[in-house]
Amino acid sequence: MAALAVAGVASAQSSVTLFGVVDASISGYSSTSRDMYNGATVKTSSRGLSNSGYNSSRLGFRGTEDLGGGLAASFWLEAPITNDDGVTGVSTFARRSTVSLSGGFGEVRLGRDYTPTFWNNTVFDPFGTNGVGTSLVQTAAASFGHPTRASNTVGYFLPPNLGGFYGQLQYGFHEQTKYSPGIATPDVENNSRTGRYVGGRFGYANGPLDVALAYGSATIGDDYYAGTTDKLDILNLGASYDFGPAKLFGEYSRSKLKTEIDNNISNNPMSFTSAKLNGWLLGVTVPVGAGLIRASYSGVKYKSSFENSLIDDPRAAKLALGYVHNLSKRTALYATVARIRNKDGAGLTVGGPMFIGNGIFAPRTSTGYDFGIRHAF
Amino acid sequence: MAALAVAGVASAQSSVTLFGVVDASISGYSSTSRDMYNGATVKTSSRGLSNSGYNSSRLGFRGTEDLGGGLAASFWLEAPITNDDGVTGVSTFARRSTVSLSGGFGEVRLGRDYTPTFWNNTVFDPFGTNGVGTSLVQTAAASFGHPTRASNTVGYFLPPNLGGFYGQLQYGFHEQTKYSPGIATPDVENNSRTGRYVGGRFGYANGPLDVALAYGSATIGDDYYAGTTDKLDILNLGASYDFGPAKLFGEYSRSKLKTEIDNNISNNPMSFTSAKLNGWLLGVTVPVGAGLIRASYSGVKYKSSFENSLIDDPRAAKLALGYVHNLSKRTALYATVARIRNKDGAGLTVGGPMFIGNGIFAPRTSTGYDFGIRHAF
Amino acid sequence: MAALAVAGVASAQSSVTLFGVVDASISGYSSTSRDMYNGATVKTSSRGLSNSGYNSSRLGFRGTEDLGGGLAASFWLEAPITNDDGVTGVSTFARRSTVSLSGGFGEVRLGRDYTPTFWNNTVFDPFGTNGVGTSLVQTAAASFGHPTRASNTVGYFLPPNLGGFYGQLQYGFHEQTKYSPGIATPDVENNSRTGRYVGGRFGYANGPLDVALAYGSATIGDDYYAGTTDKLDILNLGASYDFGPAKLFGEYSRSKLKTEIDNNISNNPMSFTSAKLNGWLLGVTVPVGAGLIRASYSGVKYKSSFENSLIDDPRAAKLALGYVHNLSKRTALYATVARIRNKDGAGLTVGGPMFIGNGIFAPRTSTGYDFGIRHAF
Repeated sequence: MAALAVAGVASAQSSVTLFGVVDASISGYSSTSRDMYNGATVKTSSRGLSNSGYNSSRLGFRGTEDLGGGLAASFWLEAPITNDDGVTGVSTFARRSTVSLSGGFGEVRLGRDYTPTFWNNTVFDPFGTNGVGTSLVQTAAASFGHPTRASNTVGYFLPPNLGGFYGQLQYGFHEQTKYSPGIATPDVENNSRTGRYVGGRFGYANGPLDVALAYGSATIGDDYYAGTTDKLDILNLGASYDFGPAKLFGEYSRSKLKTEIDNNISNNPMSFTSAKLNGWLLGVTVPVGAGLIRASYSGVKYKSSFENSLIDDPRAAKLALGYVHNLSKRTALYATVARIRNKDGAGLTVGGPMFIGNGIFAPRTSTGYDFGIRHAF
Repeated sequence: MAALAVAGVASAQSSVTLFGVVDASISGYSSTSRDMYNGATVKTSSRGLSNSGYNSSRLGFRGTEDLGGGLAASFWLEAPITNDDGVTGVSTFARRSTVSLSGGFGEVRLGRDYTPTFWNNTVFDPFGTNGVGTSLVQTAAASFGHPTRASNTVGYFLPPNLGGFYGQLQYGFHEQTKYSPGIATPDVENNSRTGRYVGGRFGYANGPLDVALAYGSATIGDDYYAGTTDKLDILNLGASYDFGPAKLFGEYSRSKLKTEIDNNISNNPMSFTSAKLNGWLLGVTVPVGAGLIRASYSGVKYKSSFENSLIDDPRAAKLALGYVHNLSKRTALYATVARIRNKDGAGLTVGGPMFIGNGIFAPRTSTGYDFGIRHAF
Repeated sequence: MAALAVAGVASAQSSVTLFGVVDASISGYSSTSRDMYNGATVKTSSRGLSNSGYNSSRLGFRGTEDLGGGLAASFWLEAPITNDDGVTGVSTFARRSTVSLSGGFGEVRLGRDYTPTFWNNTVFDPFGTNGVGTSLVQTAAASFGHPTRASNTVGYFLPPNLGGFYGQLQYGFHEQTKYSPGIATPDVENNSRTGRYVGGRFGYANGPLDVALAYGSATIGDDYYAGTTDKLDILNLGASYDFGPAKLFGEYSRSKLKTEIDNNISNNPMSFTSAKLNGWLLGVTVPVGAGLIRASYSGVKYKSSFENSLIDDPRAAKLALGYVHNLSKRTALYATVARIRNKDGAGLTVGGPMFIGNGIFAPRTSTGYDFGIRHAF
């Protein structure tokens, strides 16, 4: 992507860059669902103008200052924008807002940033977790509670000169208040760690090969009244190999949702796994002149701890196919189609607006398309 | 207006521009109203610091990329800002957020943009629909439901080389979900098209003459319980002629508010016109050295379908007079005064804060002034 | 701080600057409080990633246009940002949003700006009212209702060439609607002036000396039912003297909260002072190579008009100590520790999240630290 670079006043080695993506598409979604009350089949559909079908629409400011001696300070402030309706401007820097100090030791990064476990989902997805082609691994993980980003984090990145090896660690503070001694209501909160994230990602990229393993644990919820805390553990492994005429992608992901029961007397909280989610993806991209054909096949399977032998484990599979035509490095036209088939109670969709009665209708198939333009600056 | 242009890294033919307007004025408003309970006369007034008295305060980012072969990609992200109180920063791009592809065929524009029918109201108003001088045609149309902008639109603009002829078409998706077969509550929503806009504008600008006709239809509301949908049809014709010592402006506008009753059985919805709004404007601007004298006289008349012979049709007229003194191309001082006279129940005002008991008090006259500075960058 | 300056298209003398601060710190807070129900001691603590520990995180746009003849137009739009969690982007320009006309006569500034009375609190605080080191004078004044900034203001600044003398006046419109004759509920509002601010600041800065006196009156609240209006009068005097090896700081501040009872019959509202707040500060900074040692000792005392001989006047004192290490003009590492001791019912803290039961627990001591990085651009 092209970027604006403006020379800084203070230092010739320093720069501040204004950058962004404006991505708009005509997109349509349709589902065939079963009405759980009367068994009837209901078709729902909508179409309209969407954003971020190929790359996420954004506006950002970033810069680097050379401090001498190999040391550098840098910042990155990036806002999500909704250019189809103009509703979201630079109201947040929720995509990323960080300040860093880097040198031969690597980089220490403070602020809101992507989680290590999200990186594998997006890097090894031919559709980059954007638009109707987004891998089911990501769609299901996000609805399972997997955070794409974490706030209030301290991150560490290995330096770039390790013969292809790369890696990062991230710790996100929960910022909850601790009481001592605990009393009544605050006592439950005392055991809360909601908002906390700890994870890491390590990989090897050299020539045509890129492979990475990531692990993370996110504390995603509390029930003050039940005295429970929910933790999500995520492990995923992704790889890509560029053969030249085609690039292959693959990912395998496991998530466990654990519910801990806070025990105020023994201080030995009990924990049990309440649900599991496994996902996998196979993908390929094929360059064709100024264009790129993209395809992926992905699937997920849920498993509950409270197994009922009468009910099968919900599962779903998705096929996505697309083409990107690059008018320049900055501007591209694209088209994507995708279809999900849900089985045994899974209810995933390719996106689009939620329909009324989502809890009543169980979508069996979901189909969608994006036809749009991505312009980066 | 002066603008910042920064050379892009990717291409010498490309640029990204940061632009804006900061317009602040000391403004005052006063009304003489009749208390509808006891017939007493009540005077209300307020004054303070306002924004956008001459040009709308804004901050924006726009750019163009030359794709070669006469083709270009461009984007435009423009936020409204309230610089008098700082409450609204770049929180939305509600003024305009679009991405375009243009060439010899014209321009295809996707996103949130001005409606074609709004253009005639603002282009042919000597006060450009800003501040207390804003034409009554615009004030009344806006309160009647006429959208200044529409979201989720696909627009087409004729190329600029047609011997003075220009034109545009705009379609805004409603993005409502369609159910098949329709059931219970969703059935009503099924017939909803709220948010949809379709319109066009065609004109001729050559030498001193500019004339344009615009038509649009906006679906502006639903009543799920009554099963009704409201559509607003707008037609307006505007013209200006620059004689040199003075430039004359004129506009005529008709709006019809139609309420459709959804008929689930026959699928032939009944429609009737519930209200009409006609408006007209005459204006003039006279350049005086570095300054510009501006004046307009505008009026509106409402007509209900449910006519009651005992009640006359509400109507109002407005006189506005102003002077702009340009300190440079970017910076100007300005002063405007305006007065509205309401008759037969019309309740339009020159702006300012709504007063308590707006439903009880019927403003008969409304007077206001702006005295401010406009700085563009 | 380094800033980006970009040459404007319209004029070589004009510029628009994009500027900002991204400041992040690992910060911790702890308090020892007394449970007012049972007298037990409760310790509360939290830690996490904070912003603005040394300088307030921000993103802004400002520019100046040379109008010739010594006249200039300028604008300043500055947003607060929360880079630790990305929640607040450029959603407001609440830090400052102004447009100015300046020349030999000084500067007239319109919009939202700092109050004159806040300037003394921040300029004469070695910690600049940022982070855990913030002077108690500012912490207490802010919680007492002293506005840091005012909206809808007209300001005037003396020109800079007065032999060291400087000064400013500020008037902020309340923008309330006035009714005539007043009736029922609006009658009370008629006497409301909430939002109004009037104040000024005058000083002398020459060589090592800087001394300034500020006075302001802010209308900060109404009680429609009781028919009362609250006015806060603030007077503060600050000074600093740079001896070279060390710079000394001092401030004295008095605030009076007056409640006026609106009298609709006599139109002679009664007024009485309901509470007073006195504050003082002593500070020092000592440059050490590329670093700066900072220290301050500040205190406040509250005094109520409704004195109860059994209860002493609440008071508090604070000690803050810090070190800043400049990696460049734009980038610095910093560390600060601070401790507050509350007496006789005062409940001030060094910052951090409010804890549950703040009204039940009376904090006796509050301790905190910031350890962070400030990067400006």
